[in-house]
Amino acid sequence: MDGGRVKGPSSGSAATTADSAHDLALARTFLESSREYVDRRLDFYLPRQDVVPQSLHKAMRYSIFAGGKRLRPALVFAAAEAVGGSREDGAPVACAAEMIHTYSLIHDDLPAMDDDDLRRGRPTCHKVFGEAMAILAGDALLTYAFEVLGHTPRAEAVPAVVRAIARGVGTQGMVGGQVLDIEGEGKPATLETVSAIHAWKTAALIAACCEAGALAGGATPKECEHLRQYGREIGLAFQIVDDILDVTSSPEALGKTPGKDARMGKATYPAVMDLAKARAEADRLAAQALQALRVLGPRARTLAALGRFVVERRS
Amino acid sequence: MDGGRVKGPSSGSAATTADSAHDLALARTFLESSREYVDRRLDFYLPRQDVVPQSLHKAMRYSIFAGGKRLRPALVFAAAEAVGGSREDGAPVACAAEMIHTYSLIHDDLPAMDDDDLRRGRPTCHKVFGEAMAILAGDALLTYAFEVLGHTPRAEAVPAVVRAIARGVGTQGMVGGQVLDIEGEGKPATLETVSAIHAWKTAALIAACCEAGALAGGATPKECEHLRQYGREIGLAFQIVDDILDVTSSPEALGKTPGKDARMGKATYPAVMDLAKARAEADRLAAQALQALRVLGPRARTLAALGRFVVERRS
Repeated sequence: MDGGRVKGPSSGSAATTADSAHDLALARTFLESSREYVDRRLDFYLPRQDVVPQSLHKAMRYSIFAGGKRLRPALVFAAAEAVGGSREDGAPVACAAEMIHTYSLIHDDLPAMDDDDLRRGRPTCHKVFGEAMAILAGDALLTYAFEVLGHTPRAEAVPAVVRAIARGVGTQGMVGGQVLDIEGEGKPATLETVSAIHAWKTAALIAACCEAGALAGGATPKECEHLRQYGREIGLAFQIVDDILDVTSSPEALGKTPGKDARMGKATYPAVMDLAKARAEADRLAAQALQALRVLGPRARTLAALGRFVVERRS
Repeated sequence: MDGGRVKGPSSGSAATTADSAHDLALARTFLESSREYVDRRLDFYLPRQDVVPQSLHKAMRYSIFAGGKRLRPALVFAAAEAVGGSREDGAPVACAAEMIHTYSLIHDDLPAMDDDDLRRGRPTCHKVFGEAMAILAGDALLTYAFEVLGHTPRAEAVPAVVRAIARGVGTQGMVGGQVLDIEGEGKPATLETVSAIHAWKTAALIAACCEAGALAGGATPKECEHLRQYGREIGLAFQIVDDILDVTSSPEALGKTPGKDARMGKATYPAVMDLAKARAEADRLAAQALQALRVLGPRARTLAALGRFVVERRS
């Protein structure tokens, strides 16, 4: 990748538009191939549904194989490859990331939390399997994620990989973000609170995926730091676009009930600024993320393309 | 420890009675000192309650510091020491074990599960902090447990330690046992179902504690296998004694509502055999556990004493 490629997604010149189309195509191809790869590995790692306790394994598989873009696994693979690692090196981290993402959706949808009936276009886990089983399926997916991390081929990376992922989903990461989100419901949102919630609830896991993917691929500490920064910016941009799509999309495109955030009084970007400004903020963050990749040179091309995809996606 | 020490806890001879009193005193001293040690470390590892999100950190600390024997940490330390390791070597595993045990109590007590109001003599986590916060506090403790495992001093042991603990609390361990337990409620219990539930719900984590403690202490694969076997038998014996105490104890001694298992139609040992037979089964398992320690020689003395404590405790 030449320097010119790594720039903001909406600079608007003719060259950039061509770059953009090219990057989006690259991102889609990469997402597709890593989705196939990670789905095969998830199917291999997760216990079969005819194994006791069948109900639990069925609930876990129901939620894991409910569709989804598999963006996190793609970021893991791209990060591992950007530092010279292979897809195989990153596979356990990629599977763990998707198990953790799925566990968080299952628990967020519970009646005691966001009380959602629809997710990825299907009834939520607790609607199908009951509340107790949904809690346990989430617990089991979180646990399994760490078991799988213990199989990372580059064994010497395991301690740092485990710590990075756990930090990303802990009390000052995903779980902490969910707490802020719940506690903020119905209160007047400010830009500060919204970006704090998004940074923890969404960006922390995405940043951890990039960091852990890099570690699994044999990254230097400096490469790790840059990839984590890329992940943080891209994660924030991703969530802003999510907020925008929640306001502008159809239920079919979204796979869940749109407009729900606003009705629940959730702290979102469209609640604190107009849509055009929110989109500009997402673009700004994506441009910053791409800057963080410069140090990696041409090997970061896929990550740059995924960064562009994150802000330009329509669902 | 000579061969004579490592025998069944209820053989009844005068020598055994003296041994028994000696072992119980040793076990109590060891439990007390490891409780103090692990509580200090837990206080160090867990985020302070004045750190955002305060509510979450408060809920986690409320449940972790609610008392409890700290049996699992003691087993971790004793296993590490039995293979020549130090208490420091085992500290992250010991803290993780207690975080995981606490998370499982918080989630088991939820309205959607066993719907318990009282735990260790205090209102349960969801009674104090609400259901959403209790779910998230459990999630956070499980996550933190793995983060702490990533700090195990013998770094090369981390992959195996993480896998052992995750297996012990996964779908064919603690979580799987909770599923069988819930699904068995109100159905006629058989010895087979009861021992299957106990093996997964309780014994699997205790076995994993012994195995992971040994790994953290630098055990050989053979030592690990023996310690895991010891843990499995002691874990089963522990749960049988728990079932018995649920029938025979006062609420004060128990710290929770006694007789609840029977009222909920739970699968327990007293539901499938009389109390004397249940106690004899616990003794038999403890004797088997002590047999598994023979290969370790005198260094396993504390583990043998803890084994005796497990079946002779009164609360």
